Amino acid sequence: MKERVKRIFAQTEGLDCALFMNGVEPHLDMSFFYVTGLADGLFETGGVMIYPDGGMDLVSSLLEEPSAKKCKAPLHIYRKLDEGEDIFTNLLKGKKKVGINSEELTHANFEKLSRLAPHAEFMDISQEVKDARAVKDEQELEALKRACEIASEVAIEIPKYVKVGMTESALAAELAYLLQKKGASKPNFTLTSFGPNSAEPHYMGGDGVLKMGDFVLLDFGCIYNKYHSDITRTFVMGTASDRQKKIYKVVADAQQLAFEKMTPGADAKDVHSAVAALINATEFKGRFTHSTGHSLGLATHDGQRMFDYSLTLEPGMVFTVEPGVYLPDFGGVRIEDDVVITQSKPRILTNAPRDMIEL
Amino acid sequence: MKERVKRIFAQTEGLDCALFMNGVEPHLDMSFFYVTGLADGLFETGGVMIYPDGGMDLVSSLLEEPSAKKCKAPLHIYRKLDEGEDIFTNLLKGKKKVGINSEELTHANFEKLSRLAPHAEFMDISQEVKDARAVKDEQELEALKRACEIASEVAIEIPKYVKVGMTESALAAELAYLLQKKGASKPNFTLTSFGPNSAEPHYMGGDGVLKMGDFVLLDFGCIYNKYHSDITRTFVMGTASDRQKKIYKVVADAQQLAFEKMTPGADAKDVHSAVAALINATEFKGRFTHSTGHSLGLATHDGQRMFDYSLTLEPGMVFTVEPGVYLPDFGGVRIEDDVVITQSKPRILTNAPRDMIEL
Repeated sequence: MKERVKRIFAQTEGLDCALFMNGVEPHLDMSFFYVTGLADGLFETGGVMIYPDGGMDLVSSLLEEPSAKKCKAPLHIYRKLDEGEDIFTNLLKGKKKVGINSEELTHANFEKLSRLAPHAEFMDISQEVKDARAVKDEQELEALKRACEIASEVAIEIPKYVKVGMTESALAAELAYLLQKKGASKPNFTLTSFGPNSAEPHYMGGDGVLKMGDFVLLDFGCIYNKYHSDITRTFVMGTASDRQKKIYKVVADAQQLAFEKMTPGADAKDVHSAVAALINATEFKGRFTHSTGHSLGLATHDGQRMFDYSLTLEPGMVFTVEPGVYLPDFGGVRIEDDVVITQSKPRILTNAPRDMIEL
Repeated sequence: MKERVKRIFAQTEGLDCALFMNGVEPHLDMSFFYVTGLADGLFETGGVMIYPDGGMDLVSSLLEEPSAKKCKAPLHIYRKLDEGEDIFTNLLKGKKKVGINSEELTHANFEKLSRLAPHAEFMDISQEVKDARAVKDEQELEALKRACEIASEVAIEIPKYVKVGMTESALAAELAYLLQKKGASKPNFTLTSFGPNSAEPHYMGGDGVLKMGDFVLLDFGCIYNKYHSDITRTFVMGTASDRQKKIYKVVADAQQLAFEKMTPGADAKDVHSAVAALINATEFKGRFTHSTGHSLGLATHDGQRMFDYSLTLEPGMVFTVEPGVYLPDFGGVRIEDDVVITQSKPRILTNAPRDMIEL
């Protein structure tokens, strides 16, 4: 993992070290897992100190010692929280400029660090950390690829479980089951919406009952060795109406346009503008109400990089591409895939068919 | 939710307001969901400002407006992050003393708040928030009860899925499926370990294959309307050996002792000491390597309250009770239940049988 640590420091100057410190779940710094490469464990209240030469010191509670040992770094074990503080105090001794990841560090832990090392100057390197994490290395791409393959296999298999009269939560259960059966470390989310509910992009209900003619919108993903996948497929229960076909075609065209635009050097914001313009030139103007995509990695919304903000695409970056059209009281269509930016066209990691499927 | 807001302010003095602000998942402040009562949605980059009279202002992105409307508070919607910042700036206008929840606020968001309201003094009220959240109200207990019922039903049903030769991840998939089928909003975790792997309390593998005579340790829970359950059962595949029976009995006795000690006014630390003393008086001395339990609620480790620290038990507090004995290279037993402190004995929310089951 030396290369990842060096990538982070390559973008900073004058730091003696940087420290990623976890709170209690869910307040864990995913950069801890990035630099250690650890694929299991929570490491609550633990942390890792990294150095410009690529080295690191790992701090873990006794409870997670067996997992911690999978990282080859020097390991410091504590049993009680105050012993953990003593370890951090020792590691911070003599360090003048210490990098911190403010976006994933709790303010309480920042206050603790200031107390443990009153002599140190803490510099926010969250932008540098995001930049380093944005471009994935081979090992990360392997995990992402597997997470995406599992999600794609489930997208291909799920239609046979869809039946008129079933509830959204019953279908969500099938999604979770299939994801885990196929080897996911964890099914991550299984958003399922039928008919008019599909018009709400972040719908999280579950009581809806499937009727003939409904859209079936499934937005789901899994975690494999800490890396996330995120896919959406929209099916039609029975024969699609002309209106449903029309919506689907606009969204599919919008996604194709995004793929074409996602070349190295392009600005994510311009990709989004082109996608929005395509949809806004149709009768569904104003019905695409979110961003075209976001970066993906150790978090589903990795590094908070949404397509409504400026970002130059580089080979190795991984994004979701997920245009949608939502008509209140009628329903919505979203098609979402995960891609890696390459030297030419993006490589699509989620290979389930994207054509409209009538169930 | 007025009462919850008032509970928080009852323990503070001189505050004009308090602000719970979310980062990007997983960096969400669960207190946001506590005071709003919202049971779905993520509300990334959103927040809520609360006032001593029990009132509040809710700030949400357009994407989650439909979910946000389920809270009856005045609602402020933004589409872009900078519009969101303007809303927070307006809400902070004229506020001199502002409470913040440092343990669930990112340091980056703290820096942002300091920039948006340079005139304000920010006071950490995370201890007061934890104290308020520690004692659950009726609506919270209802959600916890349901989350625990679902987990218990799964604990009762899962033995019939356990077969020699299956992998840990295959059984984990059955757990996740049953949890969701029975109505969980989300299966939360499904830690499954067979044989010697069960000696590792936070084992997160999945490749282990079940052999006759193995311990089958299942530590799992679900989320129902944002509230968590957490249960562990340990079975024996086939006929238990004398050694296995002996370990099981010590752990079961330790758990019973904990239940007896968990009365109002007791100190969690003393409960833990008694449990540890019971185990350390047997041949399994030193083999109980974690805390007897932790508080449970909107997080699995709710409020970071572990039994190795001092805490006076009060009616309405909810805890896990989970002694264990772990013998490296042999296996471990843990029995875990969720309880509410009452005026007399704790009420057990997870009612699956606790006797040793031979499969």
